[in-house]
Amino acid sequence: MRVITTRELKERAGELRGQEVCLQGWIRNHRKQKNMGFIDFFDGTCFKNPQVVYDSGIENWEEVTGLHIGAAVTVVGTVVESYKDPTTPEVQARQITLEGDCAEDYPLQPKRHSVEFLREIAYLRPRTRLFQAVFRVRSVASMAIHTYFQERGYLYVHTPLITANDAEGAGNTFTVTNQEMGKPYKAEEDFFGRPTSLAVTGQLEGETFAMAFSKIYTFGPTFRAENSNTKTHAAEFWMIEPEIAFCDLQQLMDVEEDFLKYLVAEVLVKCADELAFLDKFTGGGLIDKLTALKDSRCARVTHEEAITILREANKDGRFQFEPKYGEDTAKEHEKYLTEEYFHSPVFVYDWPKDIKAFYMYQNDDGKTVAAVDLLVPGAGELMGGSQRETRYDRLTDRMKELGISGEQMYWYLNLRRYGGCTHAGFGMGFERLLIYLTGVDNIRDVIPYPRTPQSCDF
Amino acid sequence: MRVITTRELKERAGELRGQEVCLQGWIRNHRKQKNMGFIDFFDGTCFKNPQVVYDSGIENWEEVTGLHIGAAVTVVGTVVESYKDPTTPEVQARQITLEGDCAEDYPLQPKRHSVEFLREIAYLRPRTRLFQAVFRVRSVASMAIHTYFQERGYLYVHTPLITANDAEGAGNTFTVTNQEMGKPYKAEEDFFGRPTSLAVTGQLEGETFAMAFSKIYTFGPTFRAENSNTKTHAAEFWMIEPEIAFCDLQQLMDVEEDFLKYLVAEVLVKCADELAFLDKFTGGGLIDKLTALKDSRCARVTHEEAITILREANKDGRFQFEPKYGEDTAKEHEKYLTEEYFHSPVFVYDWPKDIKAFYMYQNDDGKTVAAVDLLVPGAGELMGGSQRETRYDRLTDRMKELGISGEQMYWYLNLRRYGGCTHAGFGMGFERLLIYLTGVDNIRDVIPYPRTPQSCDF
Repeated sequence: MRVITTRELKERAGELRGQEVCLQGWIRNHRKQKNMGFIDFFDGTCFKNPQVVYDSGIENWEEVTGLHIGAAVTVVGTVVESYKDPTTPEVQARQITLEGDCAEDYPLQPKRHSVEFLREIAYLRPRTRLFQAVFRVRSVASMAIHTYFQERGYLYVHTPLITANDAEGAGNTFTVTNQEMGKPYKAEEDFFGRPTSLAVTGQLEGETFAMAFSKIYTFGPTFRAENSNTKTHAAEFWMIEPEIAFCDLQQLMDVEEDFLKYLVAEVLVKCADELAFLDKFTGGGLIDKLTALKDSRCARVTHEEAITILREANKDGRFQFEPKYGEDTAKEHEKYLTEEYFHSPVFVYDWPKDIKAFYMYQNDDGKTVAAVDLLVPGAGELMGGSQRETRYDRLTDRMKELGISGEQMYWYLNLRRYGGCTHAGFGMGFERLLIYLTGVDNIRDVIPYPRTPQSCDF
Repeated sequence: MRVITTRELKERAGELRGQEVCLQGWIRNHRKQKNMGFIDFFDGTCFKNPQVVYDSGIENWEEVTGLHIGAAVTVVGTVVESYKDPTTPEVQARQITLEGDCAEDYPLQPKRHSVEFLREIAYLRPRTRLFQAVFRVRSVASMAIHTYFQERGYLYVHTPLITANDAEGAGNTFTVTNQEMGKPYKAEEDFFGRPTSLAVTGQLEGETFAMAFSKIYTFGPTFRAENSNTKTHAAEFWMIEPEIAFCDLQQLMDVEEDFLKYLVAEVLVKCADELAFLDKFTGGGLIDKLTALKDSRCARVTHEEAITILREANKDGRFQFEPKYGEDTAKEHEKYLTEEYFHSPVFVYDWPKDIKAFYMYQNDDGKTVAAVDLLVPGAGELMGGSQRETRYDRLTDRMKELGISGEQMYWYLNLRRYGGCTHAGFGMGFERLLIYLTGVDNIRDVIPYPRTPQSCDF
């Protein structure tokens, strides 16, 4: 008999009813009555798990009733309708065989565990319902990202992770070396003959590919050696960075909006059961929030307009931090704009140049750059992008002002001399998206094995 | 007028004939005659590029005839059939506007450049036909990998890249640190409070997810600090590592064979133009090789059977290295098996345990493990996998024999105590696949920005 997954069982439930099937997976819970037993069975391919029911007529009753929680089993039985949940069939078992026993000290006994405890057993937590949901959303969202870009002709580019660039000088970087620590160091004896670090962005290399393929995206790991022990910082995370030739700032916003709505719509459809669970688990409102986003239109305001709105709102002194022209906005400001003023995601664009990166297009006002942040209700900043400075002189002047050496970046500058064109791109932290999609509030709980200060386990 | 890509132009050629379109891209070549001009135009979305034709009736004839190779332009014109190549339409231009000029020192003048020279200008080489083909194949193959696994219910897992494990002790690793080089080193003061390195595999973490989701795969970067300056070694490369619960060695081979044929078939269909070019570029035979693989059946022999075949063949002393029972095979042996004996890919399984990793299932003969290498005509070893040792005592005994400490790996060992089951997985180096798919023979030419000893540019 061919083994089927619980996903197949659910998808073909009607057709399989009354037939005998074989399933392989694990026991999440096991309740025994006098002449019957009930096993919460899962194999991880489907969020909604079939209940396996057996009675004293089963071949090896003694053995089966003694099966431990956590054990791996093979189940042969007949597919029947479930009274409890008509959307998920039950299996009336004829035979249950132990594949791998589970020791008595198994930490995942059927009770509610704190997420903090589950982090300590990160190698077992994927077996819990919470993490079955979270990591399926992670996988489905990954695929949706690829599908979105590939269907629209974007090229997937693997930008390098080991780099000799300081890049945008964003935060602290990790050094990569094959030299012995604590010994005198000579860069020329290091593996690459020079000091190298882990990349904080693939954008600059991404631009070189956009100047050849028009539309490209990256989706890969990124690293920050920032010593921040917060709910939203990790030292290793994944990032998506599309870059588009012949695209200006307004067109970039069109892409960002379309992309985000596509991802949300995909996850709403493909992870309906997972989201229903996460909605309950996180206190309700998750599905409403995602549905509202999918159907909303994103507002677009300049930074100056946003500050005017915020200053007006602050006449009653509602904000802890005063909104100021020419300065960054605070979390409370973002929250007000998205949740109270616009009731929708908001693009804030044309930022003061002094608080943004050197490579952004300098607007004619001499004060702002063509940068845009997408603020989302309940999540704050989700994407950050810009039209790139394509005028060679303007770019090198700005770099001089900021004390950035152009020597090492000759290739990046040359893009402006060799058929440069208006182009733009954005970056989205994948885990930030996942926090938004799952309602889970700590980045440690959306990454299989999170890396944070003082923590590198498994 | 909406701008269309050359991909849209080609796909909708029939419908668009006679209509006016707007294209944006770059000039690869520009030939001028007395009253006419011809531009090889590309935007990178489609491998086959439309020729743009203009005549002296064009609005800005003087300016257009002076357009440099490499410049970015906007073209407005009418779609007409091409006499040269009926599969790719031509555009009869009414207007050609310069978007970004290209300096006279542009290195990509229209002549054949050596791949060695192109590596030095890796930031421009994506604009050449060779690398337009190679990097499109890379992107399409990436997507095919995701599609294969996702359609079959596998979960995509991002295993960590910064690790405190020695893992399989495979080769030399890069150290990751935020401490200053050349200074006294205290591990407890390092970012993670302990020494960390870049991962050489995600398999062990992958197994923890297979024990929760049944079928998982990884697809991410991997690092080796091996000082090998060869055509097939890079310090940073991407790897695919599926792991499957309730799967034995023979079933694993089924998956590997199906997966490989799927990838080859997808690339043959979706990159037909790219492969036609690469076939010519690499001297012919590429498409025949790939088509043959797709339609072949993979042979399966044990390592012992393979050695017997090789020793028989070596009666005339054809091999430089004598094939020996209990030892590894050489490249010449693999070539003979695939290209001369079986004329197909070959799975060689049940390898001598002393030349394989500690985590592989120990066969009853006491001499071999349930490992399998897939050898492919024209590429050698493409995948390496094994059924994993699931018996706790056997595994820990083997680790002791090999001097591997179990202390740090308690979580890996515990998988065998907490509902362990027969499971298996394999690894495939993505660049090795790409070398096979593109016919390009140097790993430096299938990676956007390769990292090799003494080389970390861009």
